[in-house]
Amino acid sequence: MTKNNEQLSLEVAALTRETKELGIPIMIVFEGVPASGKTRLSNELLLTLDAKYTRFIPTKSPTEDDLRYQFLQKYWNSLPARGDINIYFRSWYAYFIEYQENKIKNSIYNKYHVLKRQIQNFESMIKDDGYEIIKFYIEISDKKRKAHLKEMKENPLTNWKAQEYESAIADDVYHKEMHKILKDAPKDEWKIIDYTEKDEAIKSMNQHIITRLKSAIQLHKETKKVSDGNFSDNFKSELLNQSIEKINNKTYKSLIGELQSRLKELQFALYERKIPLILVYEGMDAAGKGGNIKRVREKLDPTGYEVNAISAPTDVELTHHYLWRFAKDMPRSGHVEIFDRSWYGRVLVERVEGFATKDEWSRAYQEINQFEKMWTDEGAIVLKFFLTLDKDEQLKRFKEREETPEKQWKITDEDWRNREKWDLYIEASHDMIEKTNTDYAPWHIVPADNKKSARIEVLKYIIKKCEEALWGVKQY
Amino acid sequence: MTKNNEQLSLEVAALTRETKELGIPIMIVFEGVPASGKTRLSNELLLTLDAKYTRFIPTKSPTEDDLRYQFLQKYWNSLPARGDINIYFRSWYAYFIEYQENKIKNSIYNKYHVLKRQIQNFESMIKDDGYEIIKFYIEISDKKRKAHLKEMKENPLTNWKAQEYESAIADDVYHKEMHKILKDAPKDEWKIIDYTEKDEAIKSMNQHIITRLKSAIQLHKETKKVSDGNFSDNFKSELLNQSIEKINNKTYKSLIGELQSRLKELQFALYERKIPLILVYEGMDAAGKGGNIKRVREKLDPTGYEVNAISAPTDVELTHHYLWRFAKDMPRSGHVEIFDRSWYGRVLVERVEGFATKDEWSRAYQEINQFEKMWTDEGAIVLKFFLTLDKDEQLKRFKEREETPEKQWKITDEDWRNREKWDLYIEASHDMIEKTNTDYAPWHIVPADNKKSARIEVLKYIIKKCEEALWGVKQY
Repeated sequence: MTKNNEQLSLEVAALTRETKELGIPIMIVFEGVPASGKTRLSNELLLTLDAKYTRFIPTKSPTEDDLRYQFLQKYWNSLPARGDINIYFRSWYAYFIEYQENKIKNSIYNKYHVLKRQIQNFESMIKDDGYEIIKFYIEISDKKRKAHLKEMKENPLTNWKAQEYESAIADDVYHKEMHKILKDAPKDEWKIIDYTEKDEAIKSMNQHIITRLKSAIQLHKETKKVSDGNFSDNFKSELLNQSIEKINNKTYKSLIGELQSRLKELQFALYERKIPLILVYEGMDAAGKGGNIKRVREKLDPTGYEVNAISAPTDVELTHHYLWRFAKDMPRSGHVEIFDRSWYGRVLVERVEGFATKDEWSRAYQEINQFEKMWTDEGAIVLKFFLTLDKDEQLKRFKEREETPEKQWKITDEDWRNREKWDLYIEASHDMIEKTNTDYAPWHIVPADNKKSARIEVLKYIIKKCEEALWGVKQY
Repeated sequence: MTKNNEQLSLEVAALTRETKELGIPIMIVFEGVPASGKTRLSNELLLTLDAKYTRFIPTKSPTEDDLRYQFLQKYWNSLPARGDINIYFRSWYAYFIEYQENKIKNSIYNKYHVLKRQIQNFESMIKDDGYEIIKFYIEISDKKRKAHLKEMKENPLTNWKAQEYESAIADDVYHKEMHKILKDAPKDEWKIIDYTEKDEAIKSMNQHIITRLKSAIQLHKETKKVSDGNFSDNFKSELLNQSIEKINNKTYKSLIGELQSRLKELQFALYERKIPLILVYEGMDAAGKGGNIKRVREKLDPTGYEVNAISAPTDVELTHHYLWRFAKDMPRSGHVEIFDRSWYGRVLVERVEGFATKDEWSRAYQEINQFEKMWTDEGAIVLKFFLTLDKDEQLKRFKEREETPEKQWKITDEDWRNREKWDLYIEASHDMIEKTNTDYAPWHIVPADNKKSARIEVLKYIIKKCEEALWGVKQY
């Protein structure tokens, strides 16, 4: 028997070297009541795997800091890179039960289904991206469990740990809730392991992992990667072809400072009410995103906002789910995060340039909607601006940049290359707005042929939406 | 005047594009009593800089979680990458004053000089690596300051912020302590700015930044990068040429389990006493580091330890100070962190292969000593193992790996290439041990010709050192 487990361990180790090679990220979840044997079982697995790409992630009760972020924030942050393995010692499921039972953020999560949907969406997003999630629920006979707890209590050096177990959620609550989850889950989603016989348990764990890794490897090899922007030949869209009334200088000067001061006041009000504000900017090159953002932030308190200007992903970012790098930077409660370009790159530049496969960018619309909902579910305000520009106006601005010494750094060959693909970008933008213009995170199209008018327009819109969220009736 | 400040801002922006290009990391510190104008001044600077590579980092009072890490941990974590700019809104100096005044971790920091030395070492380490640190202290006339505070209090939307100011360290304490720091600092280290006249203050800030950036750029261009391992031709060392008595199988089997159980008990005791344990493994290829680590961790509770197996740095890691990626992974209080290879790579592989310049690896000995002291200063146990192997024994193990199917993945061309440089590695190892064998973080040389003996030796040594730290008199 022992020999057999040794062979199984070697097989698990060999398979994980293969998943590493192929870049398949693995997440292995251990749930189970305290003293059920999940420590010993997960440690057994941990010892088998290569420490170079294995992480052990224990789920603790949410800290005060955790509570200032979105429910799944810490699981986003610690997502494994391609080829890496995370072992979760209790997971988002235990976390979920704790939120429910301790009525954490009760005002937001007054309905069971919100967090449950978040978990479902989280898992489906990462599974779609090739992540393999293996879930174990560990059980043990009551007799053995009590014996083990007693032993811990009697040893002065481990007594505190037994106490810690008891100060967490009551075992029977956890047990009851987990059994609800197990019952509702699709068949075969969870592997239940009885730890009463240790060797049998290890064997069962290893066999299950082997089966799952083999099928993940098989699936990975069969998946064809097709890059195809799939653009229609004669796309025409008027949606992005609007214009805005030109504002005169005097009105602009008197309005801009007033609006900025109001926004600063609202920043403080959002902070006090712990409402995060997420502003997303997309739009054509040279539409004036930077200048627009500058006017929005100009009077804000810098300790409470951040601008995230998105460039090409680093190699570390490329080895994660594409939403990972944005999830990591989502604001704390009461803070403002401004994205100068964003996760929408997936369905814009990545689609047009073929950096994402058709399958990837096609499913991204739904992923993005689910992603944004995770934050609005918890009270965040998400506002998205698309700054549009006439093609001739863009040419004029490009040339002006080239001719003005202190603006030359702003214009690169890439801008000219993008311009050649103008129509493709328009079509991709159009699809994006149509498919991600949700009630809870709407797009606001801002004609930016006149920069000053566009700035006033954006400021007014942000103020209106913040006031609604703070004091108005309109809530999603 | 306004025009002038606009030109200065443009110059600052242009210079930071140059430091970005050259890869010079910039850290700009703003200290000053509340309502002195540092918010407005730092925001003015922030608006000038490119959000793509600028981060604004406000220092808050230490949270419970912060206190579980080393004093400067959060500043290590947020170190800018090469070419990036961090603006610190209050910094490690305010943090230092708060630690002092609120008697945080008083048992450890009973002497003023410990934290002060940590700050000095931190700054000198990163300056040596080409980081430019620019420090401002903002002052304002008392009259203007009080007027500003009053205004904040009267506005219901900003009243809470005025209150927050007052709940922090008393202004006069902060003021008194900062003036001590300013007085003790070398001339020109801090730029003091009076904010009473806003435009003058902005001008003074911009001018100072321009001067400092210019000199940093100049210095960067003058610095020659020389890679030279500087090895003596006839190096011979007996230090690493020891052997260990072979243990018999029966003794090994009875001892190993007993020692592992004891170490597990000690893990719990360290946890309760909040003492972090840091184990560093270095040594020749095939010396059995992995197997040795496996025996150390075998019975430990996986929620309380981590193994950090060091591979080649990622591109993100390469753009930071070389100690950054290790600092980030240092353990919380009461946790165990095992490094399978470590920061010593700087003076081993990086020296031998020429990845670090002579200047870089030469100063690394002192940097490493200072780095380790930062953790032992706060009560961490740092133990370092060097596993040695006879050259013939290594050959035997390499060949065995090649001939055993399930071990083949362990042997690569790189191992053979390293072997060709055996003598250089020996000399580098020898220098390393001589120069970093400190009282507070000693090396333990472990002859590993016999793997089982080496495992017993390491376990015994760890147990002895933990017992000493927990209950013994020997403390550093």
